[in-house]
Amino acid sequence: MATQEVPKTCKVILSDTIAKKLLAEARETLAAIQGPNDSKPTLAAFLANDDPAALQYAEWSKKTCEENGFNFDLRKVDKELLEEAIVAANQDDAVDGILVYYPIWRNNQQQDRYIQETVALHKDVEGLCHTHLFNMYHNIRFLDPPHNAKKSILPCTPLAIVKTLEHLQIYNPILASGNRLFGKTITVINRSEVNGRPLAALLANDGATVYSVDITGVQLFTRGSGIRAPRHQVHDKEGWELKDVLPLSDVVIAGVPSEQFKVPTELLREGAVCINFSSHRNFDGPAVKEKASIYVPSTGKVTIAVLLRNLVRLIANRPRPEGTSDAAEKTRNEVFQDG
Amino acid sequence: MATQEVPKTCKVILSDTIAKKLLAEARETLAAIQGPNDSKPTLAAFLANDDPAALQYAEWSKKTCEENGFNFDLRKVDKELLEEAIVAANQDDAVDGILVYYPIWRNNQQQDRYIQETVALHKDVEGLCHTHLFNMYHNIRFLDPPHNAKKSILPCTPLAIVKTLEHLQIYNPILASGNRLFGKTITVINRSEVNGRPLAALLANDGATVYSVDITGVQLFTRGSGIRAPRHQVHDKEGWELKDVLPLSDVVIAGVPSEQFKVPTELLREGAVCINFSSHRNFDGPAVKEKASIYVPSTGKVTIAVLLRNLVRLIANRPRPEGTSDAAEKTRNEVFQDG
Repeated sequence: MATQEVPKTCKVILSDTIAKKLLAEARETLAAIQGPNDSKPTLAAFLANDDPAALQYAEWSKKTCEENGFNFDLRKVDKELLEEAIVAANQDDAVDGILVYYPIWRNNQQQDRYIQETVALHKDVEGLCHTHLFNMYHNIRFLDPPHNAKKSILPCTPLAIVKTLEHLQIYNPILASGNRLFGKTITVINRSEVNGRPLAALLANDGATVYSVDITGVQLFTRGSGIRAPRHQVHDKEGWELKDVLPLSDVVIAGVPSEQFKVPTELLREGAVCINFSSHRNFDGPAVKEKASIYVPSTGKVTIAVLLRNLVRLIANRPRPEGTSDAAEKTRNEVFQDG
Repeated sequence: MATQEVPKTCKVILSDTIAKKLLAEARETLAAIQGPNDSKPTLAAFLANDDPAALQYAEWSKKTCEENGFNFDLRKVDKELLEEAIVAANQDDAVDGILVYYPIWRNNQQQDRYIQETVALHKDVEGLCHTHLFNMYHNIRFLDPPHNAKKSILPCTPLAIVKTLEHLQIYNPILASGNRLFGKTITVINRSEVNGRPLAALLANDGATVYSVDITGVQLFTRGSGIRAPRHQVHDKEGWELKDVLPLSDVVIAGVPSEQFKVPTELLREGAVCINFSSHRNFDGPAVKEKASIYVPSTGKVTIAVLLRNLVRLIANRPRPEGTSDAAEKTRNEVFQDG
């Protein structure tokens, strides 16, 4: 009789691994849609806060861009000159996509939202313009129905987490596309308009039961039953707290922007999948490895890869130059058929 | 020698007085642009919070609308069904304008902002869609340059305060339009994206020196000097507080959504003009009347009148039915020539 304990087998997956695959795809797609004389795409990134973490992230993004055949033009501007700088970039043909580091204004999320909306739709690499968000919430995939040649852009961080869940096979490829999370219960801790709410909606639209948690309480996001609704459904879970939803959850995704916040390990289900997308560590690393089946300590590199994926989409969305052959057009459409 | 003190002469102006003039104008304009067979315009108002003050305000708005020849259709909806209800109203020809009572989500201003952007531009009676806000910040008056037949809508509460300042002759009609606040120093306490920031920008664009104050500090809004900039300029006043700007201010406009907050009367300049747009009393009434030259204790009724003014503009902005005579078109344009 073996008295030895079965070794814990938590698998730690680093974002680098997931990012590499996505970056290779972005390079391949770009090569397929660009002509031999097209220049390197340029991403203009606006830094208007004095957050050293944002600067570091920007420098890291620059490195990734340049290694993968993209220009990354970091533009440090005073926050009061940011709006006009974005308007100029919207009109500048040398800029293919625009990225802004948030938050910019302390205690004024709505002014940040105003800036997000100032970015032109056709350069919105972050997928934060209202039209992109509206389409995402309503499961609308294209900007130009019924022609359906222009893909709507999904917000980067939520899409990075979807790509992470696909890599981890939480999206079950046996099931039909659009239903691959059916049967899964997922808790998302964060309900910001940029990250947590779109993520909860995307996961619910793919069939999951999602508990969305923030300081105001718990909401349940589902796809609804019966005939498919035009968007996911949301219900307040009055009186519920994190402690009520963690034991129910197959997957726990945390994105609380605070050093202090930690997911209570003792409430996690044995074998849960734990993903952190905060720049702080929302899980107690050593403890969570004793309980989780899979642990992803950060998703930052996946987000950068998704940014480049979105940039390639924006380029593919542009009207084709006159004289583009039908064959080239067909190649382009096929490249994007995967969704 | 008279030993008697000169009596204090603070003039208290009630919003009713200002509103009446604006309502008469809205009725006249509507009559001028509508044909004999056009139906009463309908304003759909969505109430998705459980704030009794919002309900009371809605009922009061309904009364004003009906007294002035407009339908007011109050629609109480669950906040999670609000988005789809607005989408339906956007597409409903029987709805001429859409109004939403904010805030809806506690601690999530960005989700409220998402809803604001869901309202169709041509039904945005509150002037809160990004295109309307962008035009306001950039002093762009029309939606359709160079044709310039469709007026851009200004946000209601800021416009109501501009109309109040015009009524009080703080806008000096001797000066050229666009420069009528030149030489005035104005403090605005509140810098929300819906009220305080647009108001500070509008006043700066008309020539005032504006101190914008909120809990994060003081900012100075000006039109800038020299060649007119594409928008007002904003500078942080590091270390400045309310006590530094109140003694400098000809006009003090307060809109702090709190029962506790009171403007310190002792810091007001003798003869200052004091305007409260909060639903709470931000000034100590009896004390302020001993110091101010003019005191406007509330602006709610002016805001409702401006809402109807904006609704009439939206109707005038619509494409003319075929067969409209040139004379009718000319009348319509003249009605709006005042700006």
